[in-house]
Amino acid sequence: MKAYAEMTKEELQSELDTLKVEFETYERMDLHLDMSRGKPCREQLDLSMGMMDVLNSEVDLSCEDGTDCRNYGVLDGIAEAKVLIGDMMENNPDNIIIYGNSSLNVMYDTVSRAMTHGIMGNTPWCKLDKVKFLCPSPGYDRHFSITEYFGIDMIPVPMSETGPDMDMIEKLVSKDAAIKGIWCVPKYSNPQGYSYSDDTVYRFAHLKPAAPDFRIFWDNAYGIHHLYDHDRAFIPEILMECKKAGNPDMVYKFASTSKITFPGSGIASLATSLNNLEDIKSQLRHQTIGHDKVNQLRHVRFFGDISGMVDHMKKHASVIRPKFEAVEEIFDRSLTGLGIGEWTHPMGGYFISFEAMDGCAKQIIHLAKKAGVTMTEAGATWPYHQDPKDSNIRVAPTYPPIEDLKVAAKLFTLCVKIVSAEKLLGIN
Amino acid sequence: MKAYAEMTKEELQSELDTLKVEFETYERMDLHLDMSRGKPCREQLDLSMGMMDVLNSEVDLSCEDGTDCRNYGVLDGIAEAKVLIGDMMENNPDNIIIYGNSSLNVMYDTVSRAMTHGIMGNTPWCKLDKVKFLCPSPGYDRHFSITEYFGIDMIPVPMSETGPDMDMIEKLVSKDAAIKGIWCVPKYSNPQGYSYSDDTVYRFAHLKPAAPDFRIFWDNAYGIHHLYDHDRAFIPEILMECKKAGNPDMVYKFASTSKITFPGSGIASLATSLNNLEDIKSQLRHQTIGHDKVNQLRHVRFFGDISGMVDHMKKHASVIRPKFEAVEEIFDRSLTGLGIGEWTHPMGGYFISFEAMDGCAKQIIHLAKKAGVTMTEAGATWPYHQDPKDSNIRVAPTYPPIEDLKVAAKLFTLCVKIVSAEKLLGIN
Repeated sequence: MKAYAEMTKEELQSELDTLKVEFETYERMDLHLDMSRGKPCREQLDLSMGMMDVLNSEVDLSCEDGTDCRNYGVLDGIAEAKVLIGDMMENNPDNIIIYGNSSLNVMYDTVSRAMTHGIMGNTPWCKLDKVKFLCPSPGYDRHFSITEYFGIDMIPVPMSETGPDMDMIEKLVSKDAAIKGIWCVPKYSNPQGYSYSDDTVYRFAHLKPAAPDFRIFWDNAYGIHHLYDHDRAFIPEILMECKKAGNPDMVYKFASTSKITFPGSGIASLATSLNNLEDIKSQLRHQTIGHDKVNQLRHVRFFGDISGMVDHMKKHASVIRPKFEAVEEIFDRSLTGLGIGEWTHPMGGYFISFEAMDGCAKQIIHLAKKAGVTMTEAGATWPYHQDPKDSNIRVAPTYPPIEDLKVAAKLFTLCVKIVSAEKLLGIN
Repeated sequence: MKAYAEMTKEELQSELDTLKVEFETYERMDLHLDMSRGKPCREQLDLSMGMMDVLNSEVDLSCEDGTDCRNYGVLDGIAEAKVLIGDMMENNPDNIIIYGNSSLNVMYDTVSRAMTHGIMGNTPWCKLDKVKFLCPSPGYDRHFSITEYFGIDMIPVPMSETGPDMDMIEKLVSKDAAIKGIWCVPKYSNPQGYSYSDDTVYRFAHLKPAAPDFRIFWDNAYGIHHLYDHDRAFIPEILMECKKAGNPDMVYKFASTSKITFPGSGIASLATSLNNLEDIKSQLRHQTIGHDKVNQLRHVRFFGDISGMVDHMKKHASVIRPKFEAVEEIFDRSLTGLGIGEWTHPMGGYFISFEAMDGCAKQIIHLAKKAGVTMTEAGATWPYHQDPKDSNIRVAPTYPPIEDLKVAAKLFTLCVKIVSAEKLLGIN
């Protein structure tokens, strides 16, 4: 098929008429499908049901060091959980705090503490006239939501397949001391599935920020969430690179088991320098006596070690890989050559990013919704929900059953075609 | 025996000599005993081991409304947990948010949010020159630690058997808009085990604070933690009383299952007006996607309903009641009539409060430590760790085995006697 832009007005109008007839058949199907959030599906959750068996009333709930996990204490996590999560994050257990059930909450707390108390003796951000964050965009809506909630100015930074625009980042952070942080999803990024190149990571580690309390918020959400056994992203470990570059305290690295065991019932963690850890723990001891050690022990007993966790992730991959492949195949079949959209081909993570023609994303999402398919809200992947080109759509293939997903993906491509044709015809 | 103050110098010196010989025998025992923290003992923890069996890989982890507890979602807690905890707190489930594992963390977050964003549209506390909290004292050290951490001025308010000095509280809150809150443990208070009288609760509900964002931080930590089947404290329900008094939004009420199931692996909650809930949830959605629903379900399945929880608390009581009785009996036997100390006789909660002679608490705790018995740090029960009379000592009888506890209690009374005698003799 010809690219839409090369069609005559008549050809395009004829195409649009055909598409609209097809759309009506979808409308009559009364669909209720959801490709909006990065949620594991039922089959993925079933993979972790064995975790419900490892602790029972016959089992000793003591750590290797004798700590009774049922009682108060242990602010920063039990030793064996630090080893397991340390291996998962590629960090020394000594650099790790194990938290509760949500790494998002840890990031929120980290920003909140910087607001009220400042980082390592620096002025609390709430006492400053202006605080700014760099936001590689499109990015994760819940990151942007935290900084927006705290009134932090968000500056979008363009993303590419190798990571965010490092020229721009280097320039901005070196001259503006109001820039206190940057949101990063370095591996299998949300929403593109991009992984930072070695060079990007090195350049991050060598940043020369004007602000002494500038921190990289390195959300390693998908560190071991590969879709393929061999085609995998490897990226240099950021704590080590920062240390080698003479910037040991510049990074907070976050992770959790939310998409490994049960979202909401996993364990979250932060890895950072010993200086940062000391700073954080001096606050944390006012906040809580400790996090859920029984659940930490449950995770350790279920996986045994990192090898057990890696095997477990292969099972996840075998459930969701066919879903990614199905969506990409439908996009390929329906849209290739039409010149009305591009999409990413992730090797891991939870999303495919779709770039529509400028000014079309909102309309496409609206039209899909009309036919019963919910996509992530338009603009969500940009700070303040403002996608400057109105072009980015986040596609989340993991949750729906594959047959539903195929229907949803086809309907989505139909919506892309209709909205694009109308755009080219000057109808909307 | 005569009161120490009525003894001649020679009689007292002779008594002191005897006491010191006795102390040396304790020193030779090489004790390592701990009466410092309100921790459940092993037998208490064993009571909840059945909770480890109610969920297993054969069990459906769905709520009554079909929500899969294993996946993301449900910001404010699953419906059946709200019912159970609502009954525990004597509140409507609609007034409740179920949180993570720590009510202390909920209190911290509540203060932190007030600092950065303010309460219900009022000026964020961090933008004010001065923020003050009233602190009934002696009180709970971890409460005071939160307000101190946020730089909030703490004003001690005297406590009595019926609650804090309401004349003082009414006067202060009505004229000083900088007073934004008060810490309360209304039932079986920490450390005295006092329960507020009906009149105290009514007067709280009818406060006329100058600050529109004044809130009562009502930590109902020991709401169902009775020691006796029949001699129990009943106090009016504060949300209802505030509502009736025309002050529906004036109270945040906190509770958790930390001392019901497993400390650190329980569920925490907040009960408050719908206006406050809306205010809190508008923040909470930036903080997390949701708390641990599997653990909420685990608690619901274990207890069934509030009746199951009440029965469970009777088992706790039968473990710890003998410990309270043993300590009180030793105090009675060793100290009655000497005029060198007074102590409370709680009907619930986790502590006994000991009032030594003025200027003796630090020395007593120091001396006990020297013989291997750790008490709560001197001053801990007062804001800024400053006990103005240096007289209050918190005794926590629940954790040690009863035989150890008896040794520790005897050693403690010996230390009280030595330090008091020395004080009267002008030696220290």
